[in-house]
Amino acid sequence: MMAYIGGIDIGGTKIVAIVANRDGLLARVTQPTVKTGSPRALPEQAVQLLEDACRNAGIEPDLVRHVGVASCGPFVREEGMITLITPNLCGALNSSLPNDWDGIPLEAVLRERFERVAIENDCVAALVAERAFGAVKDEPDCAYVTWSTGIGFGLCVDGRILHGKHGNAGHAGHMLLDAYSEAVCGCGNHGDVEALTSGSNIGLRLQVSAADLFRSARDGDARAIAVAEELAQWFGRALYNVVATLDTRYFVIGGSVWINHGDWLLPRVKKEIVSRFPALTEGVELLPAALGSMVADIGSLCLMMPEDWIDEWRRSEPWKKW
Amino acid sequence: MMAYIGGIDIGGTKIVAIVANRDGLLARVTQPTVKTGSPRALPEQAVQLLEDACRNAGIEPDLVRHVGVASCGPFVREEGMITLITPNLCGALNSSLPNDWDGIPLEAVLRERFERVAIENDCVAALVAERAFGAVKDEPDCAYVTWSTGIGFGLCVDGRILHGKHGNAGHAGHMLLDAYSEAVCGCGNHGDVEALTSGSNIGLRLQVSAADLFRSARDGDARAIAVAEELAQWFGRALYNVVATLDTRYFVIGGSVWINHGDWLLPRVKKEIVSRFPALTEGVELLPAALGSMVADIGSLCLMMPEDWIDEWRRSEPWKKW
Repeated sequence: MMAYIGGIDIGGTKIVAIVANRDGLLARVTQPTVKTGSPRALPEQAVQLLEDACRNAGIEPDLVRHVGVASCGPFVREEGMITLITPNLCGALNSSLPNDWDGIPLEAVLRERFERVAIENDCVAALVAERAFGAVKDEPDCAYVTWSTGIGFGLCVDGRILHGKHGNAGHAGHMLLDAYSEAVCGCGNHGDVEALTSGSNIGLRLQVSAADLFRSARDGDARAIAVAEELAQWFGRALYNVVATLDTRYFVIGGSVWINHGDWLLPRVKKEIVSRFPALTEGVELLPAALGSMVADIGSLCLMMPEDWIDEWRRSEPWKKW
Repeated sequence: MMAYIGGIDIGGTKIVAIVANRDGLLARVTQPTVKTGSPRALPEQAVQLLEDACRNAGIEPDLVRHVGVASCGPFVREEGMITLITPNLCGALNSSLPNDWDGIPLEAVLRERFERVAIENDCVAALVAERAFGAVKDEPDCAYVTWSTGIGFGLCVDGRILHGKHGNAGHAGHMLLDAYSEAVCGCGNHGDVEALTSGSNIGLRLQVSAADLFRSARDGDARAIAVAEELAQWFGRALYNVVATLDTRYFVIGGSVWINHGDWLLPRVKKEIVSRFPALTEGVELLPAALGSMVADIGSLCLMMPEDWIDEWRRSEPWKKW
């Protein structure tokens, strides 16, 4: 039994590292995600950051041998090891980035340092956290969705988290919704969910930040209302498509757009679901992420957390003191 | 251990009943699906038909106590029992039908007669059959799709068949693809996969049967080619959306449209998948259903089949002699 576990949350903008024990979170440090140097630079930054977290907590770094990682995807396996091929990190997929990485050897580098490594897509990790401690405790048929810079899903059906052939289940942000759209996604698709609704694509397409757009809509600006309602409609249709495919009951929704505007968006998004085939949509509920902006961080820890810690954390709710 | 098992395949047009033992299929009988009388009429017809099959095989009907059922959906549970609320069977959902059924108490009626009853959506049962004996033996990440009167899916991720909150996972035929379409589905959606591509909707929308349309396209008629290529495109996009959501590797495709025109459709459908984000689509393959038109019938038996029969049937392939 390990006394400490580490958690790493890798996003396109920042990396978070946490160290925890049975009593709760001990330290949390964050840095902008490294995007230059060799393809090993990012996982090496993650190791370094976790060791910094240990030192902040007054723990000898060598005592942390088990690490859970929540990362943006998608993943491929190279020689059995998870490698990131993420359009917002890898320059070979995205010419606006200052590197030529065609893949980031995340698991290989982490295994040089840690005895046990568990890596999941960040939305999958968030779903694990919400099923352990949040809005959908032990629910069998549920999904986590982030509406943020990008759109991602973690999916659970019949009580089991879905992975798929390369661990990329949940990339329904790349589901096609509007065949005629000019909106282009980072993946190259026209008219997928992310092209139509993600924070970064709202900025590119509409020349306005998502924050400003929704604020104007709430302030009653007629044009902003029309645009924001259309965004809610597309997002709602994406959730409906997941319901039709997986017979999902609960969606836990997080990400900056929902955290800030979920109250305004909820009835508009819900309408796109409950107005359809009742045999499929009856009983579907949309819930805000109970763990808020900590959801993927806690999720990374959950991937390595012993069962008895989970029972203890359910009682003590240590993330609330953070 | 039972010496015999029964299988029932309930479709919108016909019902099939089969009786089998460890050595293979013993009898198979079929009738048009009953659509008049009380809501019990259809499951009572199924019981009757299975007893007819027993008599045809020279077996005392009372010896068949275990039955597997492949049925069109969707399902709801009433007092824990699966009830069909299928738009092409229930008059309360579809005014063109000669009944006022708002639900068919399938499981309740079958349990009065049988000791064990297992009911699955017909595409789920087909997927079980193809994973047992067909094109995707023991494959963990695969789907069965029928392109026929309707469009339905059976889904398997990480080696487990998906069910969802009411057993309706796989109704991705009701996934929205074209937000601007006039095409209406039996479920009320505009522009879902079934509205755009199903055999019955091709007939309604284009005033031509699917069979005639594809025949004209293959004969080189320019207008028919344009329409048929558009249908292939929508169907391909539906499969791509499933890949983005579930990271599926294999699609086994059946149903009359694919059985008759899969060779013409394959490259056109495949293009819609492989032209997209390689991290998600690389390695995706489309395969014809190895069990052909028997796939759901064999699937219904698989739901009740002891493990040792499966081993025996893999060797003897009794469906081939049928």
